[in-house]
Amino acid sequence: MSNNQKRFILPEEEIPRYWYNIQADMVNKPLPPLNPATREPLKAEDLFPIFAKELCRQEMNQTDAWIEIPDEVRDMYKYYRSTPLVRAFGLEKALGTPAHIYFKNESVSPMGSHKLNSAIPQAYYCKQEGVTNVTTETGAGQWGASLAYAARLFGLEAAVYQVKISYEQKPYRRSIMQTFGAQVTPSPSMSTRAGKDILTVHPNYQGSLGTAISEAIELATTTPNCKYTLGSVLNHVALHQTVIGQEAEKQMAMAGEYPDMVIACFGGGSNFGGIAFPFMRHNILEGKQTRFIAAEPASCPKLTRGKFLYDFGDEAGYTPLLPMFTLGHNFAPANIHAGGLRYHGAGVIVSQLLKDKMMEAVDIQQLESFEAGVLFARAEGIIPAPESCHAIAATIREANRCKERGEEKVILFNLSGHGLIDMASYDKFLAGDLQNYELTDADIQRNLDALK
Amino acid sequence: MSNNQKRFILPEEEIPRYWYNIQADMVNKPLPPLNPATREPLKAEDLFPIFAKELCRQEMNQTDAWIEIPDEVRDMYKYYRSTPLVRAFGLEKALGTPAHIYFKNESVSPMGSHKLNSAIPQAYYCKQEGVTNVTTETGAGQWGASLAYAARLFGLEAAVYQVKISYEQKPYRRSIMQTFGAQVTPSPSMSTRAGKDILTVHPNYQGSLGTAISEAIELATTTPNCKYTLGSVLNHVALHQTVIGQEAEKQMAMAGEYPDMVIACFGGGSNFGGIAFPFMRHNILEGKQTRFIAAEPASCPKLTRGKFLYDFGDEAGYTPLLPMFTLGHNFAPANIHAGGLRYHGAGVIVSQLLKDKMMEAVDIQQLESFEAGVLFARAEGIIPAPESCHAIAATIREANRCKERGEEKVILFNLSGHGLIDMASYDKFLAGDLQNYELTDADIQRNLDALK
Repeated sequence: MSNNQKRFILPEEEIPRYWYNIQADMVNKPLPPLNPATREPLKAEDLFPIFAKELCRQEMNQTDAWIEIPDEVRDMYKYYRSTPLVRAFGLEKALGTPAHIYFKNESVSPMGSHKLNSAIPQAYYCKQEGVTNVTTETGAGQWGASLAYAARLFGLEAAVYQVKISYEQKPYRRSIMQTFGAQVTPSPSMSTRAGKDILTVHPNYQGSLGTAISEAIELATTTPNCKYTLGSVLNHVALHQTVIGQEAEKQMAMAGEYPDMVIACFGGGSNFGGIAFPFMRHNILEGKQTRFIAAEPASCPKLTRGKFLYDFGDEAGYTPLLPMFTLGHNFAPANIHAGGLRYHGAGVIVSQLLKDKMMEAVDIQQLESFEAGVLFARAEGIIPAPESCHAIAATIREANRCKERGEEKVILFNLSGHGLIDMASYDKFLAGDLQNYELTDADIQRNLDALK
Repeated sequence: MSNNQKRFILPEEEIPRYWYNIQADMVNKPLPPLNPATREPLKAEDLFPIFAKELCRQEMNQTDAWIEIPDEVRDMYKYYRSTPLVRAFGLEKALGTPAHIYFKNESVSPMGSHKLNSAIPQAYYCKQEGVTNVTTETGAGQWGASLAYAARLFGLEAAVYQVKISYEQKPYRRSIMQTFGAQVTPSPSMSTRAGKDILTVHPNYQGSLGTAISEAIELATTTPNCKYTLGSVLNHVALHQTVIGQEAEKQMAMAGEYPDMVIACFGGGSNFGGIAFPFMRHNILEGKQTRFIAAEPASCPKLTRGKFLYDFGDEAGYTPLLPMFTLGHNFAPANIHAGGLRYHGAGVIVSQLLKDKMMEAVDIQQLESFEAGVLFARAEGIIPAPESCHAIAATIREANRCKERGEEKVILFNLSGHGLIDMASYDKFLAGDLQNYELTDADIQRNLDALK
């Protein structure tokens, strides 16, 4: 059953009132984070020095499946939510596939990506708890721009460490953060011990999310009344992003369909978890058989080629030890343009789900991702973020498989953001100046062996 | 009467089925365009060599108030319309004004501006009439990007002449056009007689919309099966844009309000006419007293300081003579960042309405426009296009007047586009590197005297 309607939008009263906490429903709960010194399991209070308290509680909550969205946060969501669910008729036609392809268009947020969904509650809880300054890291700048705006909204000062390669590749995102009044520093910088340490050893290091996280945490823990915020990886970030999947559920019902596959690109797991978890709930509780596919870059393949073990979330080792698929916290990813996917590890919920075969992962090379992005742009009129191109590439692979087999499957993917700020990378792609990056097993093993 | 709702969205079936042709309702109709050689009034057929036939008919139609939107076009509108009407609570608070400020958010179109509203029907009619190639000009690139996408949608080849200063200031917009497969040439170029002529006299000329129009028309009229398309100025372009005002009418009713003022930035008049004409209809037919305010750049002030006379629409004199407020078709505007407003003339409908005092115009300096844009961005989370900043600046002036007088007026402005591709200009503004441009009466008169 389906119809010819292209876009599905929810009335304002249908915007979710609760975030969905999949931890409560998981058969195998994620293992606890560990104190690196004692290797004792952490409690929520142990994270209070770094994050707003309520976010720490959400992080460790394995019992409540539904967590109420504060009215002030929901009011802010209304500025851009619900985001449209779109039937990608143009892409279906371009591929000649019998599959029905839908995408959730998170690019319509004023910051151009899904990141605002978590930036708003994080800034809100900080404000509620009397925090005056927030710090964070950002790769491509989508998270940094969202936090800069959310901080401004609640009257907080924001300091952002932006991965140096992205700071240089994507100057417009820096300008956006500065327009909102945030202080932006390229990472690694000489302003922190973590930054100095790595620059001393690798003077030309172009940065990674792991390093930028270290710098931001260091600033937060050494500044009075300042908290750190993170744009992905952590449980509470994926929790906030579940507004995406909850809306998509209702919108798919409006379209009279239910997804056979749910696909999202994968950096730390927040946009993937955001769209996948509300649907995965039905797999867990009702035995639905939807496939969930995380699309990661071939040059940073923690899910497809990493190891499941306890590792640090940042380069300098300031975070607790997290049980996750990782390439090792010192892994230096290639300089692909999907800056938001250049992270060595995966969130602990997703790591457990992958271990339990509740989901799958595929890796996508840079050229395949941009080919998919250009095809999508020409078919649907929206230029996707380089990160989102990975989800599109994985979708195209599945849609082509449907074509080969004559199967009319329903595919839903998350368009996590638009690429209007990333046109320099499209320029390079169209000019033939982008490349793939090969990673040998030995490269990966060498890095994992270096873990203490 | 009002409420606390922030965004108003129409159900899909409420998207307009007709464009509103204000010419039919105008008491004083616009004067006819003239053949430059004979000075005889033109008929629609005289324009057939340049434009698709149906567009020529729409251009000259002074009798039908409602022109049906083809189903194929309306289907494409559904991909992004209705656009939200937003109550700017954040801006109201920042200004401390009792005014109720609303904006129509045309920036949510996939191309980031209102321009797609006319690009789609223009490409559609070309396709219907067997055209295979379209040409156009673009300033900042919003129109060019929209036409490039619309051409791709209907399987047409697109060639775009982009004003050289914008081609250099805004490389991302060129990349967007190229991603959609359009051929983009900086104007003036050596590829046309019009371009060569001006480059011979002014080798470093940074271009203007008037020159780019000449080049695009020349290419269209010397290429088989090729038509020219224009992104503003002409009656049929403003006609297509009336979907904006028609939606806003219904959405203002949802909010329980009616505007005392309608404000838009002004380049050639399409976004202004688009939002204003459906409301102006009620002034004409029912005696409503809404004020309509066009905000133009102080460096290109055709409405506030130009003369009403017959002039060419382009620099080289390829167009018919149009009865309009103009600074003279050889006027070389200063290199402001609002590239879409750098045009010497005003559409003939708007020119007649201004002459008849049915509307007003104000001029805004570059620094005031960016101050307004940054204030708006920080209050509402959306970074406005430099063009739209002019509408915001005019809105802020009026909202401050309401504050001085304690008047709770209702102001509606059109947010014609976002500024995510224009961050380089925000960078310069924040760094103090932008300037105002003063224009003396003698400068203006000298140029008008040069008209034959």
